[in-house]
Amino acid sequence: MSRERRDVPSTEDLQPVAGGGLLDRRLFLKRGLILSGAGAMVLAADAHAGDDALPWMRKPGRGFSNYGQPSEQERRAIRWISANRTVPGNGVSWTPLHALEGIVTPSGLHFERHHNGVPEIPFERHQLLVHGMVKRPLAFSMADLSRYPMRSQMLFLECGGNSNSGWNKEPLQSRAGYLHGLVSCSEWAGVPLSIVLDEAGVDPQAKWLIAEGADAAAIHISIPLEKAMKDCMLALYQNGERIRPENGYPLRLIVPGWEGILNIKWLHRLELAREPVMARNETARYTELMPDGRARMFTFVMEAKSVITSPSPGETLPGRGLYEIRGLAWSGRGKIRRVEVSADAGRSWAPAQLQEPVLPLCFTRFRIPWNWSGAPAVLKSRAIDETGYVQPEREKLIAERGRNGYFHYNAIAAWQVEDDGEVTHVYR
Amino acid sequence: MSRERRDVPSTEDLQPVAGGGLLDRRLFLKRGLILSGAGAMVLAADAHAGDDALPWMRKPGRGFSNYGQPSEQERRAIRWISANRTVPGNGVSWTPLHALEGIVTPSGLHFERHHNGVPEIPFERHQLLVHGMVKRPLAFSMADLSRYPMRSQMLFLECGGNSNSGWNKEPLQSRAGYLHGLVSCSEWAGVPLSIVLDEAGVDPQAKWLIAEGADAAAIHISIPLEKAMKDCMLALYQNGERIRPENGYPLRLIVPGWEGILNIKWLHRLELAREPVMARNETARYTELMPDGRARMFTFVMEAKSVITSPSPGETLPGRGLYEIRGLAWSGRGKIRRVEVSADAGRSWAPAQLQEPVLPLCFTRFRIPWNWSGAPAVLKSRAIDETGYVQPEREKLIAERGRNGYFHYNAIAAWQVEDDGEVTHVYR
Repeated sequence: MSRERRDVPSTEDLQPVAGGGLLDRRLFLKRGLILSGAGAMVLAADAHAGDDALPWMRKPGRGFSNYGQPSEQERRAIRWISANRTVPGNGVSWTPLHALEGIVTPSGLHFERHHNGVPEIPFERHQLLVHGMVKRPLAFSMADLSRYPMRSQMLFLECGGNSNSGWNKEPLQSRAGYLHGLVSCSEWAGVPLSIVLDEAGVDPQAKWLIAEGADAAAIHISIPLEKAMKDCMLALYQNGERIRPENGYPLRLIVPGWEGILNIKWLHRLELAREPVMARNETARYTELMPDGRARMFTFVMEAKSVITSPSPGETLPGRGLYEIRGLAWSGRGKIRRVEVSADAGRSWAPAQLQEPVLPLCFTRFRIPWNWSGAPAVLKSRAIDETGYVQPEREKLIAERGRNGYFHYNAIAAWQVEDDGEVTHVYR
Repeated sequence: MSRERRDVPSTEDLQPVAGGGLLDRRLFLKRGLILSGAGAMVLAADAHAGDDALPWMRKPGRGFSNYGQPSEQERRAIRWISANRTVPGNGVSWTPLHALEGIVTPSGLHFERHHNGVPEIPFERHQLLVHGMVKRPLAFSMADLSRYPMRSQMLFLECGGNSNSGWNKEPLQSRAGYLHGLVSCSEWAGVPLSIVLDEAGVDPQAKWLIAEGADAAAIHISIPLEKAMKDCMLALYQNGERIRPENGYPLRLIVPGWEGILNIKWLHRLELAREPVMARNETARYTELMPDGRARMFTFVMEAKSVITSPSPGETLPGRGLYEIRGLAWSGRGKIRRVEVSADAGRSWAPAQLQEPVLPLCFTRFRIPWNWSGAPAVLKSRAIDETGYVQPEREKLIAERGRNGYFHYNAIAAWQVEDDGEVTHVYR
């Protein structure tokens, strides 16, 4: 099979719309475009496959399986784990965002944050109790709950501590998934919380809901009743099937768009109360001193964020030419309205294409073509949500929040592409 | 903890909208509804959780995992396999639709149809060839292809032979997933096929695309070029991660809304041609004699279908009272416009609630409340798509298509609820 590699990109469609070689987001919607910059081989005109030679076509393949698994070649597309050595089952694991496409996170790669490990709870014995300031305290078996009306929704779920290495003085060198991967996106299905609370009959004096999980840490937290009534869900299913153990089997509270810690796994108790419980995870944690001496507390909403997943740190671009910059954006306040990308460290910006459908409180995939000249470049993305909120530059975030930050870091990330194609994490 | 079970449903909201106790689809959107029919326990007012006693809260749970798996308690939510004993790796496995919620099918439960097993293809060595009636025959490595622009879309994928036990004289008694589960729904991501074909430069005389997989059966099939250019995709990712081996790793052709057989797995060759190739899977199979002596052939589109997943055969309802009827609908012609449900064998119908967002060529989840009196009832659902097409009753389908049918069975399914709560499959 004779071949030649074409190395002369056609340039007529490559007029930049912003600095550093960013191209019109609609470029790829045009028909008849020659993208030879992307490196396919041209075959001789008489080429044919010659497939008889392929060893995997010469013998029958593997048989059927009751439950499929990823290819053994995809061993790098895993959760990296950071576990606390002194407390069993305490730590996190990250979603490898840089290895994924689309908006669904496979359940096996959904990030984890556990305080004392993953309990094994017998489905038949698990109960949800609703008590405190209610007319009728109630207990639900999982079979009871399954008869209630359900709804389902694609939602991102993000740890309040996601991206917190951004508070470091120097940029941490790691993969995009390990810098920003305490966020994942799933289709959650279950019973609207308002239905169960209505059935219990909430005392009008109650203002908070205290949710507790049935793990060894008995993780519990306070949620404003207004949010609980608005859109929270008692989820029994994740991405079609029963929730995985590490994501809360058999029952998880879903609090759309708000901090991960509120989305209590292994949910077994809901107490209606007049005041928040002032648990460790709302006082010692998730409370932060501001530059003006005041403290941020009950900072529930995850503000808009975006991250370029490709190209991203740890990759090396094979050479100048056409690439597609791809990434994810999300906002705890609703839909992503716009994502802008810069290839010149933020001096100029161009709008990225958003993959339809753009759903509220869900990952939004963005993409934009980029013609890399081979010179050093700094790539950034910034999300703008439907409230008009603009993801801030790092300097601005630090000016507002000071140097005591640990949670809710959502500044623009910057990836530097070196002239040899290596991509690194920078503060720019 | 003292308890009483409430067995008196409140009836004010239970005015039926159709026979057999179907209720208004918006019932559950009302606030303040008491659903005591669903069987939660009322606790004594001084109840508290007494959780100290739960054994799984008394010791640390399991640690982190690089790649999560379903709970070991969910062993029944698997693909059932029907393999041909005489041909290795030939057969099918079904998605257990009755065990799932929402619209995403977990990749591990996506249905399989293999002709000669699942090949193990080295990602680094796999190539896609584009040849035949083109200006420039091309070869793409998977790394080349990954630089091309991508898109992603939630799409159902259905085998042309799905539901074909419906052609049997007597209704097969099995679970809903094994009657109708050669259909699944995933988010597919990859490169629009039109971009790659444009780059190769298609000869205006070419009318068909012949796609071939790199399995031992070298499965190949003909696709009209117009469809290939319209919306087909060279998919590299399924539900966020690389496609699983049994679904075509590393590359699958996605042909939205059309027969599963066209969605060639392990895709390695695309040949542009003037005529279809007349392969076994478009002549000996997928061609059917009609009552008028003509043959159906190249019947690509999967027409609208729906199935009630709960309650469904193999379940036994615990008693009269309030239930939610749940199911899935889809159409190869676009969006589902409406799903109607009957609880009296088709004498009267009520519209179900459709879970938003309703997406084209994708599963649509429907739900409707039902107050079961305890008397025998026959449940049916029928899908109506955006073209106005109405899923037919079985008798009508057989009158049109005759008794030689094997493929494209999309008649309304009927589940009978006996007075003891047992659910069976009937022809009604």
